[in-house]
Amino acid sequence: MTERHKELSDSWIENADHWVRAVRDGQIPSRRAGTDQAILDAISRVVGERDPVKLLDIGCGEGWLLRRVAEIPGLQGVGIDASTPLIEAARQADPVNRYEVVSYAELIEGADSLGDGFDVIAFNFALLADDSLGVLNAARGRLTGGGTIIIQTLHPEVGTLSGETRDGWRIEDFMAFEDQGWTPMPWYFRTLESWHKVVREAGLTLRELIEPTAGPGQAPMSLLMVCESES
Amino acid sequence: MTERHKELSDSWIENADHWVRAVRDGQIPSRRAGTDQAILDAISRVVGERDPVKLLDIGCGEGWLLRRVAEIPGLQGVGIDASTPLIEAARQADPVNRYEVVSYAELIEGADSLGDGFDVIAFNFALLADDSLGVLNAARGRLTGGGTIIIQTLHPEVGTLSGETRDGWRIEDFMAFEDQGWTPMPWYFRTLESWHKVVREAGLTLRELIEPTAGPGQAPMSLLMVCESES
Repeated sequence: MTERHKELSDSWIENADHWVRAVRDGQIPSRRAGTDQAILDAISRVVGERDPVKLLDIGCGEGWLLRRVAEIPGLQGVGIDASTPLIEAARQADPVNRYEVVSYAELIEGADSLGDGFDVIAFNFALLADDSLGVLNAARGRLTGGGTIIIQTLHPEVGTLSGETRDGWRIEDFMAFEDQGWTPMPWYFRTLESWHKVVREAGLTLRELIEPTAGPGQAPMSLLMVCESES
Repeated sequence: MTERHKELSDSWIENADHWVRAVRDGQIPSRRAGTDQAILDAISRVVGERDPVKLLDIGCGEGWLLRRVAEIPGLQGVGIDASTPLIEAARQADPVNRYEVVSYAELIEGADSLGDGFDVIAFNFALLADDSLGVLNAARGRLTGGGTIIIQTLHPEVGTLSGETRDGWRIEDFMAFEDQGWTPMPWYFRTLESWHKVVREAGLTLRELIEPTAGPGQAPMSLLMVCESES
């Protein structure tokens, strides 16, 4: 594990209490304004065609997504995250879905307990490092034939807006949050070209590309990619 | 033909002399800095797998692209444009490739003289109106099986940068050009989501997405999409 990966992984343990409050109290404006609904809508469009549905939420955090999609009949959810305190928080809040502590490294190495045959795999702001090709390959290997991978991520145009347009590590300092005392988190920025390339290299085809906004005429709040496994 | 379409079409007749000078004297910095090379490279990657190759350049203008790709052995080029003076300029400068005056409306209605069986169809900054779905459908119908459509266009992040992020008509005033006396040109802005949607609705799948830059760390100068016909 590189230093960056360790810092990233540790930040989700150290920030677990902050994060649970931030998500459950609705402290992240873009999530309230549309990115939560955007990934729920994308999952609903895919699920609408299948029944029953096995959904894997990779980097599930405290589990809000599985709690929300549990309302869809016939849906079986599994959530994994490398952060033990976040998985504990997910389990406490949700007696229905299954949550497991699994790191991305373990996923890439083939975490046996996880199972496969998933119809939909979701990454909601959860591809945060430079190992996305390996993670997506591992995810694709757990899909059913014709399965779908849904990725929501920061919109790459923040690169141009911030004057730093190359793929590379950045630091999230969480200064926009109300409370203090967060551990800074390294995360890996990708351009749009780089996102599409890693999706393609992982044997996926882009089926839908969505730019959630807070309303007509607003700038995109994220990039949401609905991808299918090739062949 | 709507008023906007007529203004757009007329501008390419009225600006023909300006445009021929601008392209042939290299007056457009982004073209010199990389967008010309980006579409040439994309064509080369596709052509590398085929021989001979029939290439259709839709909205070819004064013909620079076909003159440049004519260096590829075995390539037969056809260029079409709605502007008679631009097609005349293209013919005068290029005795090898075929150039025809064909409007996008005629293309959509099925311009018989054009032929089909094209391996590659290029739109280099040439999808300028709100009729791109019809134009792309008509183009796809002229492809060989497994053929490729390459679209280069203004990068959608100019929407956010200009504070106007919705699909809609804009006006190009050509004020950035050295000479004066251009006729303003209406053009239709699309978001990234909208571009991907129209590509998908036209029965195309995105194979490559390129963001040409003037160099490492520079903002993208365009969006280049390499698309294949489905089935």
